[in-house]
Amino acid sequence: MATESPPVSETLVRVNYSETDQMGVVYHARYLVWLDVARTELLRRSGTTYRDLEASGLRLAVSEVSIRYRQPARYDDRVRIRCWVREAASRKVDFGYSVEHAEDGRLLATARTSLLALDAGMALTRLPDHVRASLQPIPDPIKL
Amino acid sequence: MATESPPVSETLVRVNYSETDQMGVVYHARYLVWLDVARTELLRRSGTTYRDLEASGLRLAVSEVSIRYRQPARYDDRVRIRCWVREAASRKVDFGYSVEHAEDGRLLATARTSLLALDAGMALTRLPDHVRASLQPIPDPIKL
Amino acid sequence: MATESPPVSETLVRVNYSETDQMGVVYHARYLVWLDVARTELLRRSGTTYRDLEASGLRLAVSEVSIRYRQPARYDDRVRIRCWVREAASRKVDFGYSVEHAEDGRLLATARTSLLALDAGMALTRLPDHVRASLQPIPDPIKL
Amino acid sequence: MATESPPVSETLVRVNYSETDQMGVVYHARYLVWLDVARTELLRRSGTTYRDLEASGLRLAVSEVSIRYRQPARYDDRVRIRCWVREAASRKVDFGYSVEHAEDGRLLATARTSLLALDAGMALTRLPDHVRASLQPIPDPIKL
Repeated sequence: MATESPPVSETLVRVNYSETDQMGVVYHARYLVWLDVARTELLRRSGTTYRDLEASGLRLAVSEVSIRYRQPARYDDRVRIRCWVREAASRKVDFGYSVEHAEDGRLLATARTSLLALDAGMALTRLPDHVRASLQPIPDPIKL
Repeated sequence: MATESPPVSETLVRVNYSETDQMGVVYHARYLVWLDVARTELLRRSGTTYRDLEASGLRLAVSEVSIRYRQPARYDDRVRIRCWVREAASRKVDFGYSVEHAEDGRLLATARTSLLALDAGMALTRLPDHVRASLQPIPDPIKL
Repeated sequence: MATESPPVSETLVRVNYSETDQMGVVYHARYLVWLDVARTELLRRSGTTYRDLEASGLRLAVSEVSIRYRQPARYDDRVRIRCWVREAASRKVDFGYSVEHAEDGRLLATARTSLLALDAGMALTRLPDHVRASLQPIPDPIKL
Repeated sequence: MATESPPVSETLVRVNYSETDQMGVVYHARYLVWLDVARTELLRRSGTTYRDLEASGLRLAVSEVSIRYRQPARYDDRVRIRCWVREAASRKVDFGYSVEHAEDGRLLATARTSLLALDAGMALTRLPDHVRASLQPIPDPIKL
């Protein structure tokens, strides 16, 4: 049997002061960095590091982001980001995300992103087979 | 007759080094800051500063962002962000945006955001009448 | 005898993509966020959370930073930040830091920061006795 | 005889929301980005763009920063950053900075940075003669 990689990665971050704004909550653009970190972690658990992908000449560039903010995250909160593959095509991968308060489980945000495979010259290219094979889509575990 | 405020604000930024990433382009989360700056500028041209809104106890919190990245922005590029109101309800305002290269006019990104009116306790509230009146929606000048 | 808190905190971070710049290394301003996270961790291990300090009306505001960059940190590197108290006066605390590559121990940066105790109105104030008592200065473990 | 470039550059920025933190002021690390922008502007006025320098294979990497924060900057403030050359050696340039409130002239911060000339392989190298010649040091116009 093949080894199984978990279809959903879980990443924990603690909100630092630089992430807050004067509304007393996490500035909304900061969530996109968390999604990036979670996506990197999903790749890592799937057997691929993004660092190695780039070293081999491939780039995954964000082409679309949709995010819904539901509850604010606050300074020093522990936050859990879940990430999974929604769809993997030859040149494009769609990821889904949930962002939750790590202690009480409150849903803070949900998001979707699309990434395009680009070569070193920033032209659209095909994902290597082993990368695409490692990105197994699953149905969204929660409504996005 | 009433004074006319321009229905579309135009904001120029120059890409600084902190905004680039090792792909040699502007990091995608950074565009959300540009949208924020452009939205603030639209409010200012409509007769309202967000600073004053906050001082009066109102907050406009981002509840949704959708953004499509079309071409990369690069270090030292001059970038123009256009912003307009798509819809203004009693407690929610939707904005549209285009992000263009200021010299050659190439479209770099398009985006939509929804903002909710919150009171000082972060509860949903009504926009003051004069603010809502100043936020005149227009049809999208380009396809988002 | 009193419980002993460790005089040097150790914090691990992994470099994420947003922290890189087009030189292919971590953008220099980003290190200041790491110092902040390490300082928060030192406070936490000393029995004080900065979140609680702020809730009690106290702020610690950075008044000076001196940092020497020695070797670049790169994407996906694991980085260890050590933080200690250099001097604690009634209204001011000086911290020292080393930033190291977590795998090979290379020294990436050294830094010093001064923080002032401010009240809710941003006026200089005295540190509470229990906070000052918990901030025991030590000689610099490495040359800064 | 020689063309005169202004020995002190002046750069204006307006504080945006992403730059604030929950203390209600600009987060301290953000000033380093302003210094970077001001330094780039000084180079540009001296006849060199950093973009061109990099395209020619040279990098200027920050090796030291010392900054003193004197008064907080706040959301929507207009801030003026002055930048000048303190010393220019064959492989290293020292810059000085003042950060002021643009409307009332209050001094917000002063800073010094050192930058090293690196080649494309990140090894120490000599500044091109025309670049070094354009970087004329002046005595600090204010005490740093």
